[in-house]
Amino acid sequence: MIADFCIVPIGVGVSVSKYIVECEKIFTEAGLKTNLHAYGTNIEGEWDEVFAAIKRCHEKLHEMGVPRISSTLRFGTRTDRQQSMDDKIRSVQEKLKSE
Amino acid sequence: MIADFCIVPIGVGVSVSKYIVECEKIFTEAGLKTNLHAYGTNIEGEWDEVFAAIKRCHEKLHEMGVPRISSTLRFGTRTDRQQSMDDKIRSVQEKLKSE
Amino acid sequence: MIADFCIVPIGVGVSVSKYIVECEKIFTEAGLKTNLHAYGTNIEGEWDEVFAAIKRCHEKLHEMGVPRISSTLRFGTRTDRQQSMDDKIRSVQEKLKSE
Amino acid sequence: MIADFCIVPIGVGVSVSKYIVECEKIFTEAGLKTNLHAYGTNIEGEWDEVFAAIKRCHEKLHEMGVPRISSTLRFGTRTDRQQSMDDKIRSVQEKLKSE
Repeated sequence: MIADFCIVPIGVGVSVSKYIVECEKIFTEAGLKTNLHAYGTNIEGEWDEVFAAIKRCHEKLHEMGVPRISSTLRFGTRTDRQQSMDDKIRSVQEKLKSE
Repeated sequence: MIADFCIVPIGVGVSVSKYIVECEKIFTEAGLKTNLHAYGTNIEGEWDEVFAAIKRCHEKLHEMGVPRISSTLRFGTRTDRQQSMDDKIRSVQEKLKSE
Repeated sequence: MIADFCIVPIGVGVSVSKYIVECEKIFTEAGLKTNLHAYGTNIEGEWDEVFAAIKRCHEKLHEMGVPRISSTLRFGTRTDRQQSMDDKIRSVQEKLKSE
Repeated sequence: MIADFCIVPIGVGVSVSKYIVECEKIFTEAGLKTNLHAYGTNIEGEWDEVFAAIKRCHEKLHEMGVPRISSTLRFGTRTDRQQSMDDKIRSVQEKLKSE
């Protein structure tokens, strides 16, 4: 599956990058392929591993003292064919170039 | 935790309500408290139960022949206090009335 | 169009209902049909009016002293037929009852 | 403002990259800074320009024959300081490196 995760810690001020850093480390330790962008992180992996890592992100931030968290997730599955994160981007970029 | 789930079946035409119906049944069978609205479903329950039911929704729709699914989820956790879906709505509605 | 809006004020503590209240008032004043749920608000109306009201929400919260805001929006348009928020919910609920 | 946009055409099969291509062209023509990732596109620009381009994406896809569209958007504004898409990513990456 491919997911796109954005976590927002609430009640700890406006600077949130140190919490994003912890999530990146959790995804890396879980062996998941990720791509950090300006409004979230793409994650590629098996369903259970992706969601276990996301759960660990919430647990970790609460352990760090964050009292409230609001996350958003987009996630897609398909049975017609295999498609990686790179495939998805390449598919668009190739069409853009050929015009 | 409180979540808000919206599932979009792709590749099966524009009429998607029969797939939403299956998801509603999955949440009910899982014993989760839900509230269907015009752009998704609120879900209240324990983390693992909520995410197991969401996984079952993807599996069920693929079994029904949906080749591709794109879902979005908002989900929140807090450690400062207990708060139900009804509490969240009531908190806003009471302030609206008192103005 | 039908939209689903969730606004998260950052940097003003964990209690956010007073900010949601202001947004509800903005939508009502704009004459938009809304439905508050536990993780956002459904909004039905013309494109420009919906987005003008959402912009006003961000402006209003910044005026109230919120330094940072992160919002999420689902929004749908269709050309095949007219569909209201009530139509969407009814379509699912009728299928649920008939089973 | 910084936004993250994901558009899902419904009723035109499972292959959607040609529609994403059209949206990328609209953002480029609008002079907006974008970054395509595996589950959407980051967009940086002034509020009215970003939302005008997003509206144009919906219009364009409907013109191309897409009967139904469901989009999701994350968008953030802040008054405490200026922050670009690159700043957001760099802020996380620098902390990751220094550990």
